[in-house]
Amino acid sequence: MQKLFEYNWKVREEWFEWCKQIPQEELLLQRSGGLGNILHTLLHIVDVEYSWINAIQGKPDFELDFAEFNTVQSVKTISDLLQKEIRTFLQAWLEEMDEEKVKVSWSDKFYAKGEILRHVIAHEIHHVGQLSVWSRELCLKPVSANLIGRELYSVS
Amino acid sequence: MQKLFEYNWKVREEWFEWCKQIPQEELLLQRSGGLGNILHTLLHIVDVEYSWINAIQGKPDFELDFAEFNTVQSVKTISDLLQKEIRTFLQAWLEEMDEEKVKVSWSDKFYAKGEILRHVIAHEIHHVGQLSVWSRELCLKPVSANLIGRELYSVS
Repeated sequence: MQKLFEYNWKVREEWFEWCKQIPQEELLLQRSGGLGNILHTLLHIVDVEYSWINAIQGKPDFELDFAEFNTVQSVKTISDLLQKEIRTFLQAWLEEMDEEKVKVSWSDKFYAKGEILRHVIAHEIHHVGQLSVWSRELCLKPVSANLIGRELYSVS
Repeated sequence: MQKLFEYNWKVREEWFEWCKQIPQEELLLQRSGGLGNILHTLLHIVDVEYSWINAIQGKPDFELDFAEFNTVQSVKTISDLLQKEIRTFLQAWLEEMDEEKVKVSWSDKFYAKGEILRHVIAHEIHHVGQLSVWSRELCLKPVSANLIGRELYSVS
């Protein structure tokens, strides 16, 4: 599971690099799908990941004010910051936690911790697929989505 | 790992259902990104999944002739057929196989079996993200990508 987080973070980092070639107004231009623009789709990925990982740990919910994040650097900064905390959490992850149930503040239901991790993983990959179409529509090569052969950070 | 395959297959099934509301020419219409159209992006997902799972098992490579698959039903039929075989393979998957290396016919490199599985999982989710943008561009609601709370098949 950790390896899929590592993959997502590596791809995310490359998307931040990709963004640097695009003017800010293009990054915030309204598009079909995702969160409606490139930059806030990236911020949404960060926000959702952190909210769920907080919820697993019984920590209070966390909401980002999207209006405050209008540059690549601001999104990358919050992403890097929250990633450090998530990495610490994942390092302590044990297989037997997979089926443990937690209640999250934005739902009445209980969810298995492992299901939450899988949700967060799939959520990012899905939105990155959307970025790749927008990239092609801008006639730009998207970041590679290949997991195979990609060098990853070591989580542990 | 199996649960992410289950998730992908459930989402794929829903995309086949989604396709039924679209005229065939729209499913094959040239678009930016992915395999260039909706139907062949779905077929590509099926093709890549099966090729890698075959490779893990040391079976010969398998190539689909995309020109033969121009209807939703034809893509769904091959998807269902190959999925049965893959399900059997996944039922026999053991954690200790994760680091075992295999050589695949289309590369000189050796890859860890677990890395291949993660690649296949991420590959499908990524392409489905692309389908979701094309769906919005057609002013249609895409299939939900939510993993959380989704009822899945039982693989084991």
